[in-house]
Formats: sequence, structure tokens, C-alpha cells
Amino acid sequence: MGSIEKDTSTAAVDMPLPAHYAALKTNGKRMISTLDEACTWGQTPDGGMNRLALNDDDKSVREWFVAETEKCGCKVTVDAMGNIFAVRPGQNNDLPPIGIGSHLDTQPTGGRYDGILGVITGLEVLRTLHDNNVTTYASLAVIDWTNEEGARFAPAMLASGTWAGAFTTEYAHARTDSAGKTLSGELMRIGFLGDTPCSYEANPLTAHLELHIEQGPVLDAADQSLAVVQGIQAIRWYHVDLVGREGHTGTTPMHTRADALLGAAHMIVAANTLANAMAAAQPLSKAMATVAVVQPTEPDQFPQSINTIAGRVRLALDLRTATDADGEALDAKCRARFAEIAAAHGLAFKMDCFWVSPAQHFDADVVACVRASTGSGAMELVSGAGHDSGYTNMRVPTGMIFTRCREGISHNPAEYTRPEDVALSAEAMLGAYLRYDDLVRQKMECNV
Amino acid sequence: MGSIEKDTSTAAVDMPLPAHYAALKTNGKRMISTLDEACTWGQTPDGGMNRLALNDDDKSVREWFVAETEKCGCKVTVDAMGNIFAVRPGQNNDLPPIGIGSHLDTQPTGGRYDGILGVITGLEVLRTLHDNNVTTYASLAVIDWTNEEGARFAPAMLASGTWAGAFTTEYAHARTDSAGKTLSGELMRIGFLGDTPCSYEANPLTAHLELHIEQGPVLDAADQSLAVVQGIQAIRWYHVDLVGREGHTGTTPMHTRADALLGAAHMIVAANTLANAMAAAQPLSKAMATVAVVQPTEPDQFPQSINTIAGRVRLALDLRTATDADGEALDAKCRARFAEIAAAHGLAFKMDCFWVSPAQHFDADVVACVRASTGSGAMELVSGAGHDSGYTNMRVPTGMIFTRCREGISHNPAEYTRPEDVALSAEAMLGAYLRYDDLVRQKMECNV
Repeated sequence: MGSIEKDTSTAAVDMPLPAHYAALKTNGKRMISTLDEACTWGQTPDGGMNRLALNDDDKSVREWFVAETEKCGCKVTVDAMGNIFAVRPGQNNDLPPIGIGSHLDTQPTGGRYDGILGVITGLEVLRTLHDNNVTTYASLAVIDWTNEEGARFAPAMLASGTWAGAFTTEYAHARTDSAGKTLSGELMRIGFLGDTPCSYEANPLTAHLELHIEQGPVLDAADQSLAVVQGIQAIRWYHVDLVGREGHTGTTPMHTRADALLGAAHMIVAANTLANAMAAAQPLSKAMATVAVVQPTEPDQFPQSINTIAGRVRLALDLRTATDADGEALDAKCRARFAEIAAAHGLAFKMDCFWVSPAQHFDADVVACVRASTGSGAMELVSGAGHDSGYTNMRVPTGMIFTRCREGISHNPAEYTRPEDVALSAEAMLGAYLRYDDLVRQKMECNV
Repeated sequence: MGSIEKDTSTAAVDMPLPAHYAALKTNGKRMISTLDEACTWGQTPDGGMNRLALNDDDKSVREWFVAETEKCGCKVTVDAMGNIFAVRPGQNNDLPPIGIGSHLDTQPTGGRYDGILGVITGLEVLRTLHDNNVTTYASLAVIDWTNEEGARFAPAMLASGTWAGAFTTEYAHARTDSAGKTLSGELMRIGFLGDTPCSYEANPLTAHLELHIEQGPVLDAADQSLAVVQGIQAIRWYHVDLVGREGHTGTTPMHTRADALLGAAHMIVAANTLANAMAAAQPLSKAMATVAVVQPTEPDQFPQSINTIAGRVRLALDLRTATDADGEALDAKCRARFAEIAAAHGLAFKMDCFWVSPAQHFDADVVACVRASTGSGAMELVSGAGHDSGYTNMRVPTGMIFTRCREGISHNPAEYTRPEDVALSAEAMLGAYLRYDDLVRQKMECNV
């Protein structure tokens, strides 16, 4: 029933690391001190992080990231969305780089691992290659994607989405934070409004790899460190608006009411029941439904009052499924049941799907390289959360590694990944990166 | 199942009006123009009223009320809560006056009848006595109770409650509005902070009569104009606090969640189901349950977010029953079922009853006078809403008349009572008042 489940149908493919790379080792101790360094800016007293995109702390960590990659001989490109590409040349620099990317921004009550662990994993791969004077076939780009969280500028994954062409740069630049500041103005203010167009065409990649904490409890429950990510679930977001009739709670007979909140409560229960039933009947659907927001529409105009029957309610509904078809099926089930509930309670009813993120299936070759690098028997998961890799996957071969986090807790100061898993993360990413680089070399040489 | 139901067990008692009053007639036309006049201050463009207690419009209508009653020879007393008692002397002025009272303040999106109709009904009775040079046995006090709605200063019925001793004057004076202004400061500002203590002991009444719109649909559905009110339901208000666990909606398996909003939805449905079942099994319980408020506790700290499972939810629950025992029984049923739901969803759960208004049974003599004055076959109702008469009933014989309002709509600009029902209201109140006054005379003469 979870968003993330072991799929035992795939087995690890034998894909040995090229022999000349056998001696390469990432440095787990350095990873830990680098993680501490990367969390210097935006620390909170409870051990968490508050580093909203493009604030002064984000500026500081970006400057640190640029300096560290330049120490390893990288040429740094900043694009029009502030995405940072630190590129280390390879043997064939006519090819676009292979990216290892994630994000350095956090939620306002975030932790030290979400996004940050992925970026410093890329940095550790870079340092390991640099320390050992290894020249890979393709160039390497370690990437910090801007504003992944969407906590300051909605929507989330705005900058990787712009790179992939899902949003125009004009649209993205005009996004504002709660204080009315624009994203482009803040990019300019902190000195990260680059000249390079934010585009997979103008500034391409050969592939994209990302390591991220799981943000779910499956690895921790199974006592495993790493997982192969097969793709990202389909996500559908809705507003459900109900209009009933205000009335006095003491004088309006129960059977004559049109109680919008009572109808909403039935819908919250129904969405949960329908998703559970679908997941039970079709386990591969991995169907989930959540209502986490319930409020009066136009709260100023329709304040809630203990003795006035709720006349207007808006729910926000989040549906997740393994495939787009499953998402449409769950949509239809909810829609039909909600219509029955609305009719039974005398409510006008509107269900508006305002965002669909299609299911993403990661590239078979990249997934094979990840599988060969995460150890035999590593779990195969589908991500329930969106990631920048969801957007890069629309344009270039993409894959992800998940690292265990304690109890699946994320977006929370209590977010935690053990030092040994931090070390394993870098080791697995190095393997996956080198394997894919070798695959690219093989393909190019065959073409020649 | 409604809060308000016909009780066919009582029959009208033969209680003729004393013969010397037979020619007295209230003036329906004057009632309509007085209603218009009383709604001069605080009118809204949609035909409704917005006259929050002690604002400048309330000041104006109070000054108008004082002037109109003084024209009829009243001596006006203002107490420490701004309650206005316009007293017309009787034959026996050693007795405290018989009050006819209601309120002139409104909800912010209120109508023209709620409270206002009751005060101008008292004014019409006063004018009719004055025009006809009738001297009643006891004196008459036409009363405007301050801040009945509680829309500006919580709780509702604060000033009649203070008069009855349910609140201290110090407590009531210190209530603040949303701008932080105190009730006593606003009384002083508009010139209605009186010297007379607000107390049933220092400023007593012999009885209290009130006419009010029904604020429910029963009279309109039955096509009747007036009803005898037997009393006021028991009311119990609760906060139900649920604490679960925040989590990512995409990565937290459904079966591992502690979803506070899902638990809350089950409770909203359960409260409705339990009240309906109780009302079906024991129709006399007139049980009703409503949840009209659902919100995150500490909204700043726990904002709702579409992709974060709700960790903290507060519900406000409103229970109404005919008797206190029924209220306690419904409380126990809800508490037991909520505990089961909380346990099933892994939620910490607290159900805090923060206000109980015991069931009020009006005085048999006053009710008999009302019954004799509302026409044969008038419905007998129990009020589902609280009224100032609920507090006066704690201290002196009290009774109420209900007047039909269209579709039961109240606390709404669309609130409407037909002119012919407005006219009937004054006529019935005159009859009830004169009958009770005569009853007081008879009792006093027997005592002598």
C-alpha cells in the first residue's frame, strides 16, 4: 500500500566497474565534514536547517560550493535560473557533461540531508576523481538546482522544470515569495542571475544522476542503506469546492441542512477508503490519497464559527499512483463517489485538477548502473516525492539512488542519516557515475 | 430530529385578557416604520445590517431608543454593562418592573429582525399603553441588552449573563474586541457606561418577556406566524484536539500514517451519526451535533500544506439536547467513539468541554400567558439558540414568543419577517404582558 515498495521482479545485472577504476575510493570521513560545512549557513538551534532559496544563507552556501568545485579545476556556469553547473573536463569534451545534481535549499523547518546530501555526494565524486588525477570519458557536471523545495517560490522544482522546458524563464522569473519579491530580483541581488540560458538545449547534459534521502520509512524498516529508484509516481493535485448553506447550529434541523463540512468529512474518508481498496485489489497501482488541507473558501468572507453550519469548504486532494492510467482510474472513482456525497448532502460540488505530474520511468541503462553500484539485493523503489530528476528525465537519461533516513522523517529538523550511510552514498554514486560514463564511452566508440 | 419541534402534549389554557384592556390595539403600520427607523444605523447595501455592539451605529440606535422611550414618559436607567432599562411607572412601583427586552446589536453580516424586532415590539407595547393612558399594575421596563451577539466581544449574551450573575462585571468589562479595545472602554467612549450596578439584585425585574425571530425553519414550514417557547436547549461546546504525525503524502505508506485530519473526518461523521441515532431512538432528546470549525492548532506553527499529512487538527463541536441528561449522554457517546477513532488512527486525543449552557425551562405562568396570547393551536417550541432570556430565566420568571422568519434564514442579510407577522408579534406581546401583569396583581392582592 505504500508509495514505495520493493519490486522483486528485477535482479542485479552483472556490470563490473572498469578495472582501471578499481582503486578509486571515496572518503567517508571527508563526506561528514563536508556535510557539516555545507550546513554552516541556515542552521537552526534544534539541529535543523532553514535555508530558503536565494536568501543570504543560500547565497553563502552557493559561494562555498563554487569555490570548492573551482579548487578541483571546475569551470562554473550559472544559468538564468541560478542553477550552478560545476564542470570538470573529460576526454571527449564535445559531449555534454554527465550531471550529478540535487539542491542546497531547504524547507523552513527542514533537515540537513534533503538535497544537501545529493550535492555533496557529487562534490565527493568530483574530489575523488581530482585527487586521483582520473580523466573520465565525458565531462562531469556537479549541479546545484535552484529552489527545489518551492518553499519560497512556488511551484517546487521550478528551476529544473525550466531547464526541461516545462516552464518558461519569464514565468519562473516572475514568481514571487510571500513578501512579494520576485525570483529574478533575488537572483540578481545575491549575484546568481547567470547569462547562460536555462535550457536543456542551450546548456545540455548527457545524463543526470541524483542521490537523495528516501524521505519515507521503507529502507529504515528493512534495515537497508541504499535503494535503486525506478522512477517517480504519478501525482495529481485537486481543489474540491463544496457549497452548502450556512445556518444556525441550534435551530436548523439536522435533516434540512446542507452542511459543507460534513460532506467534506465524508469525502476525506471516501478518498482514503477508495485508495486503500485500489491498492488492495491492484498492489502494483500503489494508490494513495491524502487530504491535508481543509478550509473555508475565502476565509475572510466565510469565517468559521462554532455555531454556524459551514456553508463553504475547500479541500486539497493529493493522489499518487504508479502509472498515469492508475491515476486516471482513481480520479474517476473519487469523482463519482464525491458526486454521490455532494448530492446526498445537498451540496454544490466542483473538483478541479490543477496539477498533474505524469509518472516518470527512469532510463534502463542508468538504472542498471545504479543497480550494479548499490550492492546486491538493494531494494527497488518508486519515489513518492517529486525530485529535480523527474524533470531531467523528460529530456535526458536519468536515474536516482535513495539513502535511508531514520524513520522516514523528512522536512523536519529530526531528519537524520547515519554517517556510514552517508559514506556508502558517495561510494555508490561514484560507481554509478563511472559505470554510466564507461557505457557512454562504449557507445561512442561503437559509433566511431 | 430538529432542535425545535412541535410538542402536542400542551394545550392552550383559557386565560382571557382583563375586560378593561379589550380595546387596546397595537399599531402594525407603526411597527413597520419603527423597524425601518431602528435599522437606520448600520444598514448594508445588500439589505442587511452590520451593527456590532458599542460601535458608532450602536451608539446612534441606543440614543434613538432612549429618546423614543422618554417621549412615552419613561425614566431611563443605564447599568454598568450599558444595558438600557426604559421604565414606565405602574400602580405598584414598589414592585420591580416587568421587562420586555431583546437586543439592538447585530452580527457583522446580520439581518434586520434578529433582536431588533424584539426591542421594537417592547417599544410598541409601551407606545400603545402610553397612547391609551393605561396604567398597568407593575411598572414596565423596555430593555436593550448589550452585546447579545457576542460578535464583537465574546462570549454572547455577556451583559444579560452579567446581570444574572453568571459573569462578574470586572470580567465582562475586560473583554476585548479583535482590535484589542475593551468593552468598558467602548461603553465609556459612546457614553453608555452607567452608574447602576449590572445585577439582578441591585436592579431587579419581576419577570422578563422576549419576542425573537425563530432563526429556524419550523414555523415557516408549518405556515404559522407565532410560537410559544417552552425553554432553551442544553448547549455544550467542545474543542477536540488531535495530534498525529506530519509526513510526506507521497512517501509515507498509508498504513503507517497517523493522519490527524483523516481521524478528524471520521469524528465529524461519527458525531453526526450518533446525534441522528439518538434523536431517532429518543425523539424527545432532540439531539443535534455539529462540527463547523476544523483547523490546524497553532496555524502559524502548523500551516496546512497539500503534500504534508496533517499532524495537528482542532475541531469545534456543538452539541444540543432538550435536557442536560441527554447532553451528558451524547457527550459520553461521542467521547467513547472519538477515543476508538483516535486509537485506530494512532492519534493523541483530547476532548475539552469549554462551555455548558444548561437547558432552560421557562416559567409555567409566563408560558401560559404567552400561550393565551399567540392564538389557539400555536406551536410549542424549544429554542435551539441561546437568548438573553436564558440568563434572565436563571433569576426571574421568563418566557418567549417566536416569530416566523423566511426559510429560517438568520445571521444573514436575507433574514426576513413579513409585515403581517411583525404586526402580530406586537399584538401577542401586548397580550402576554397584560396577562402576566394581571397575574402579578392577583397574586399581590391575595397576599394582602
